[in-house]
This record gives sequence, C-alpha cells and structure tokens, in this order.
Amino acid sequence: MSEPFGERLAEAVRAVGAPLCVGLDPDPRRLPPDLRARLEGRTGASWRQEAARAVEDFDARVLAGVAGVAAAVKPQVAFYEALGAPGVAALERSCERAREAGLLVIADAKRGDIASTAQAYATALLDPEGPLAADAVTLSPWMGTDVFAPFLDQCRRHGRGIFVLVRTTNPGSAWLQRHGQPQGAALVAAEVHRLGRELVGSTGLSSVGAVVGAFAADEARALREQMPDAWFLVPGVGAQGGGVAQALAGRRADGLGSLVVSARGILYPQDGAEDADVTEAVRVRARSLAAELATSVSAGR
Amino acid sequence: MSEPFGERLAEAVRAVGAPLCVGLDPDPRRLPPDLRARLEGRTGASWRQEAARAVEDFDARVLAGVAGVAAAVKPQVAFYEALGAPGVAALERSCERAREAGLLVIADAKRGDIASTAQAYATALLDPEGPLAADAVTLSPWMGTDVFAPFLDQCRRHGRGIFVLVRTTNPGSAWLQRHGQPQGAALVAAEVHRLGRELVGSTGLSSVGAVVGAFAADEARALREQMPDAWFLVPGVGAQGGGVAQALAGRRADGLGSLVVSARGILYPQDGAEDADVTEAVRVRARSLAAELATSVSAGR
Repeated sequence: MSEPFGERLAEAVRAVGAPLCVGLDPDPRRLPPDLRARLEGRTGASWRQEAARAVEDFDARVLAGVAGVAAAVKPQVAFYEALGAPGVAALERSCERAREAGLLVIADAKRGDIASTAQAYATALLDPEGPLAADAVTLSPWMGTDVFAPFLDQCRRHGRGIFVLVRTTNPGSAWLQRHGQPQGAALVAAEVHRLGRELVGSTGLSSVGAVVGAFAADEARALREQMPDAWFLVPGVGAQGGGVAQALAGRRADGLGSLVVSARGILYPQDGAEDADVTEAVRVRARSLAAELATSVSAGR
Repeated sequence: MSEPFGERLAEAVRAVGAPLCVGLDPDPRRLPPDLRARLEGRTGASWRQEAARAVEDFDARVLAGVAGVAAAVKPQVAFYEALGAPGVAALERSCERAREAGLLVIADAKRGDIASTAQAYATALLDPEGPLAADAVTLSPWMGTDVFAPFLDQCRRHGRGIFVLVRTTNPGSAWLQRHGQPQGAALVAAEVHRLGRELVGSTGLSSVGAVVGAFAADEARALREQMPDAWFLVPGVGAQGGGVAQALAGRRADGLGSLVVSARGILYPQDGAEDADVTEAVRVRARSLAAELATSVSAGR
C-alpha cells in the first residue's frame, strides 16, 4: 500500500517550499538551436523520430533545472502524441527521468471514457506496471460519473491521484461549465468532494483533486468551499496570462491545496532570445516563480 | 482539397450496402491462442512489446475479414495506449492497413483540450502528415467551444471529420448530459449543428457528426431534429446490449445518417469458444450484422 497521492504531493510541496508544478509542453519548433538543427531537412516519419529524440534531450535539460525547485511536472501528452510512437516513447522516458529526479508526474491527458476503455486508460497512464506509471492524471467528466472508477482504484491501490476538470478559464469554457442551476461545474465539484472523502490523508488533502483555472478571489473561494479537501491544479500562470495571487486564491487557510502550473513561461525565454544554457535558464525562471509563490502563500496566512 | 468526410462516409456506406463500423478494441487477453501463446512468460515492457505485435497481427486478420463489409473501422486508442509506445506504433500500422483495405478510420480518442494542446491532438490524430492520419476522430466538449477549432480546420483543409460526444447511454451519463434546461446534450447538439453547416456536402450530410447512443425512438428522433445534417456514430450494438432497430432510430428519412458500431460482438466469439480462422469468423459476424442493418434501414423507408 503506497502513501496516498494527496499526502505525497503535500510532502513534495513542503520539501521544495513552493506549490510549483512545471508543465512540459515541448514544441519542436521552440527547441534550442543545437536540438533544432538536428531536424533540418527532415520530413514525415523521419522528422518525428528525430524530433522525439530532441524533445527527450530538451526534457532532460529542463528536468535537471526543475529538480529540487518544483514539486511536480505536468507533461502535456498531446505534444508527445503529435510525434507518434517515438514521441510516446520519449514521454515514457521523460516520466522515468522525472521520477528519478524526485519529481511527481502529473500526466495531463484529460481522458474521459467508460468501462473497459476507461480501464485501458488507467493502465496506460497510472498503473505501476504500465508504460507511463504517472503519479496522477487529469480527467474529463463529460461522459459521466462512471469515468472515474478504474482511476479511483489506482488511487486506492497504488497511491495515485486524479485531477478532474471542474472549471477552466478559456474563452469557451462557460458554455457547459456554467450551464444550468446549479452550474455544471458545481455538480462536478460536488462529485470531486464526494469521491475524494475516502482518500483524504493526514494533512486533510485528498488524492482526488480538481483542475481549476486562476479565478478572481470570490469565485476561487466558492470552489474551495465546495471542495475543502481537494488539491487544485491551477494552470494559466505566466505565458497564459494569470497572476500568482489569482492562481493561489483558492488555497486553504493552511496555505496548501493549490498547485500552480507554469509551462511556457518556464520552458522558453519570453523575450524571443535563446537560452545559452537551458538547465540554468529554466532553474532561474522556476526559482523566481517559486519564490513569488512562496511569498504569496505566506502573505495570505 | 479533399472530398468532405461526410460525403466520403456516405459513399463508403453505399458501397458496402450497410452503415456498419467495426470497433477495434484489441484485448491481449482475448487474442486467438496462437497469438496469446507468444505472450507467455513475459512481463512488463517485454510483454507490452510482444502484445503490441500480437495485436497488430490480430488487427490484420480482423481487417481482412471486415474489408468490403464495413464502411469504417473505429480503433479505440486506449487499448493501444495501454501497451505504451509499441502499442501506438501498432495503432499507426493498423490504421495504414485499414486505409489500404479501403476502410475509413475513425480514431476513438475522445480528446477535449484547447489552444496549442488541441492543435497538437489534431496533428497527432488527423493531419495527413501526422503519425495517425485518421479520417475522423471523437471529441469531448466539456472544456468548451474552443475545443473544436483545430479539428474543424482539418475538416476544411483535408476532408477530415469529427464526432462530438453529445449523448451516451452509460449509467452515469445523465449526470451532465441531461443537466439543465435545455439539457447539456441539447446545447452540444445545437453547437454540432451550427459548426457543421459550413461542411455539409451534396448528400446533405456534414463532416461534423455526433456520438449518440442507441436510444428509444422518441429520444433518437429528437436528437435528429436538432442535428438534421449530422452523421450519428452509434456505439453499443452487440456486446454492449443495444438492438439494431434502436441503433438506427435516429437515421434520416433517406436511410442515411446513422453509422452503427459493433466491436466485441464482431471481434470475439460470444460463446466462449475460439475462432478457428479469425478473418473468416469476423467476416461471417460482420456480414450478419451488416445484413441486419441493411434490412432494418430499408424497412424504415
């Protein structure tokens, strides 16, 4: 019986001193010049094969910069899948490398299916004997409450976690998420709370979490009231425009409960220049955001 | 400029004489004895590697039996992803083999993300230069209307199609899909209709379709009224328990518009026996269901 994911995440955040998760969104067109150079003149399957190798090398540099600074990494599986089977192989190796560096791995897959298909996704993403063996995964609730069962089983048996898409900030998100009374997102939040109660650890945080955008304080607090035990996975800081205070607005009184994600803001220089040393540049940017988060967390207590 | 997907599907259905789509849900534990034997004594990555090869061989036998009988195949990507990178490589090759056999390929991925991530999924699944190059894909609407943009771009530029999860029949599906007034599913149906209008071909069917479970006639007709131009992808016939008449209840007056999926009912013998010849057994079962569908379509006209 592994330690529950909610606890493992709380420990990881305490160990690094900030609730930071670095998103891995490796874009072959934004790799450093030495890696990009390898792709020149290639097309099709040959390009994908070499791009996957370059992405894996880029991830290795990023992970070296992030280790000890972030609590977790969040590979966005779409970017790897765009490179086909070699990309998926690179994802598997990057996840292993992240684990070896002491980082928790949250596979951002947003899967949402049922029955034997949901089971196959749980095996693919979370199972310790499976190809990826991530610590947690993001899930989409649209198909219904039966989406979660095989993933919850992984949470119980193997200390895994899930983050259910509750409420996001993209332009079209209100359409279904704010539809109805109570709003769709509130239904999902209630289910996250209900499902998570059996998986609350000694810190009072559950292995069943929620993806919650960086909202204004009142909206973030309303979601926290609905899901007092849930870890919030909060995307949208940095390149996506959200501020640190807003991203942390839904945290609990003890300062825990919000894990803030930054991807492009950490991976890529924002001034259009190239990083001379990716590991060092990533470490500097990650440390800077971690310090901002740590300050903001303490300020709110 | 390729022919629109909605038209290509109509032509494929006419060519084989029945609106049949065979689901590819390859379960390594249900493979024929000669393929299963290859996996004995293996575990972990070695098991996955060999299981992926066995699945690819199984698919080849299935596709040979299905060619000329079904209009399309629907690989369930979760089953391949459960085998890791070798499974994804097997999926790529099975999709290529399906195309060579004249079958349309509908990747059942139920993806639903936004911005550059949605773009990466569209590249991964539909792009002609991408690794899978499927003809169509299933999508989940929960994150919002912005989920669809890069996939619609593939529809316009490359004759691809999408099937949006509108209404399913699993036990937990009513939770969000029937929530609110109008119900969530009705909102999604309206959006499917709206998005699809620019992509309606000469048959009057669009490249923007809907996943719609096999419902009682009145519910199916209500969904058809909302989405007069949409192809319905209807899972749940055979092993999942739905009947042919119900699966076709939402078709249009011209008999077209519902594409019925059977997976396990075609792939695996239902009596617990083993198929002596997978290709022949699959062909017999597929032909039998195709005949039932053709009879039911004509009966309704």
